[in-house]
Amino acid sequence: MKIMVTGGAGFIGSHLCDRLLAQQHSLEVVDDLSLGREDNISHLFSNPAFRFHNCSILDERFDEIMAAGSFDVVFHLAANSDIQEGSRDRRVDLQRTFQTTFAVCEAMARNDVRQLLFASTSAVYGDVSAPAPEDFGPLEPISFYGAAKLASEAYCSAYAHRHDIRSWVFRFPNVVGARATHGVILDFIRKLKNNSSELQVLGDGNQQKPYLHVHELIDAKLLAWQRVQPRPLEVFNIGPESATTVRCIAETVVEEMGLAGKTRISYQNQPFGWPGDVPRFAYDLRKIHALGWRARGSSDNAMRRAVRDLLAESEV
Amino acid sequence: MKIMVTGGAGFIGSHLCDRLLAQQHSLEVVDDLSLGREDNISHLFSNPAFRFHNCSILDERFDEIMAAGSFDVVFHLAANSDIQEGSRDRRVDLQRTFQTTFAVCEAMARNDVRQLLFASTSAVYGDVSAPAPEDFGPLEPISFYGAAKLASEAYCSAYAHRHDIRSWVFRFPNVVGARATHGVILDFIRKLKNNSSELQVLGDGNQQKPYLHVHELIDAKLLAWQRVQPRPLEVFNIGPESATTVRCIAETVVEEMGLAGKTRISYQNQPFGWPGDVPRFAYDLRKIHALGWRARGSSDNAMRRAVRDLLAESEV
Repeated sequence: MKIMVTGGAGFIGSHLCDRLLAQQHSLEVVDDLSLGREDNISHLFSNPAFRFHNCSILDERFDEIMAAGSFDVVFHLAANSDIQEGSRDRRVDLQRTFQTTFAVCEAMARNDVRQLLFASTSAVYGDVSAPAPEDFGPLEPISFYGAAKLASEAYCSAYAHRHDIRSWVFRFPNVVGARATHGVILDFIRKLKNNSSELQVLGDGNQQKPYLHVHELIDAKLLAWQRVQPRPLEVFNIGPESATTVRCIAETVVEEMGLAGKTRISYQNQPFGWPGDVPRFAYDLRKIHALGWRARGSSDNAMRRAVRDLLAESEV
Repeated sequence: MKIMVTGGAGFIGSHLCDRLLAQQHSLEVVDDLSLGREDNISHLFSNPAFRFHNCSILDERFDEIMAAGSFDVVFHLAANSDIQEGSRDRRVDLQRTFQTTFAVCEAMARNDVRQLLFASTSAVYGDVSAPAPEDFGPLEPISFYGAAKLASEAYCSAYAHRHDIRSWVFRFPNVVGARATHGVILDFIRKLKNNSSELQVLGDGNQQKPYLHVHELIDAKLLAWQRVQPRPLEVFNIGPESATTVRCIAETVVEEMGLAGKTRISYQNQPFGWPGDVPRFAYDLRKIHALGWRARGSSDNAMRRAVRDLLAESEV
């Protein structure tokens, strides 16, 4: 297959490129390197089945790339992935997540590209602690990150129905692993490298969310993509069946850095890390389980594995 | 109360202005007259509690109007309301519906305006014939009109939660009455004035949707607004408990125009009027009924009343 990966130099996108090339697909990556890093994909530059375009989706050149590529499918991952940054400046998610999705759908419709895999998020559900099936709401995002993803899903739906673009929407949990650019694990590692005697945690440490290793996320996406999908649009929650507290992450990072007994971990007296943070979340995973995918390990294990990935990476 | 009505020169907006002024509120209307008409509000110009700004929400002046007005509440109705136009040019709903909503929310957040009533649509549900409660999906729009409204709802939610803007989202049915600018009733009247011997109907005539008279819609909105709302965001389906077929509309228009027995009505062999049209729709109305609002008449009666309104208007 001829595949475009937007955001392919990013954390999840670059792991996806590795996997798709291993499956003998031919790839073109579009990434403006605003969050992605050339380092994540430079090992692929010598592969003749791989091509990199340093280009924004909002640039006029993007349509030319789509027109020239004769793509069978677009894996659209380009987006703002920093939720807190989107709270500080409300146009960040609007432009980097929503407007890019509109531009991708538009270019696909104009150039008859017929398959779209969109990277959405559990944040579209908002502050709901109960498991949420894909086809039921409420969909009530409490962050601009979640709003931009839901707005994008809305347009994926209209393009799927009106322009015959078969679309898979994946609502991601917290995804962790090597090449991550931000998130709680990296925050803790950075703080501890700066000052190993104390780790200040945002919130009371009881925030509890599902963490999934990036390799397992990609397994789930590729499995769903390979199955026959009779409807124009299918939405899938993806996640592990368990969740991990921020307290557990703090203790694991301290332990893996060899600081157990040396670092004092302190917490705040509020149940959320920052405004817009959803303190507890659990998915309804029946739909992706029915397809045959299930997270192999627990959320705690995925998190510990990611801590090791990131510590190994930072020692290079 | 000091109230801004966006789209206040439009079909629904102008009726809302009449009602709010009768209730002794003070109004400022923002309308760029792209779909609205000065005729709809010119009878209000002499009222000292009324002020009209001929201005686009996407214009820089909009923020100045919001800043200067010390508004308590915004009734946001400005939007593209022509679903078929949005199919022809996919940027129409993006700009006139979604981007205007983002701009309204932004200006409200910057200027500490704390109440928003947003005019959404049943089209956010997509092609579902079964009654859909507000808090449950699926939300799978099949038109760009529906996508832009759902994208707008997503941002209303994030602003409600993050910037303490109490928000009411109303999912409108087909709304009919005097001052309508388009829709199936007007289409039929115009076609019959052009050629009274034949009326060609789009679709097979069995498309069946709920029609509500604009005055009843406004009753429902104002009732919900006046009730104490403990949550930041509440979504309400609004509609009658019955629905009307396109065949019934065609026959009623022919009859009300005195053409019964003189006009041949012809149908097409497809179950929808145009691509993106949802052929059958019925709401779950328990939430608005529980507040104490219920449509007084049937959908058929609302439609007939609107036919008479529009015929009377066209004779002026």
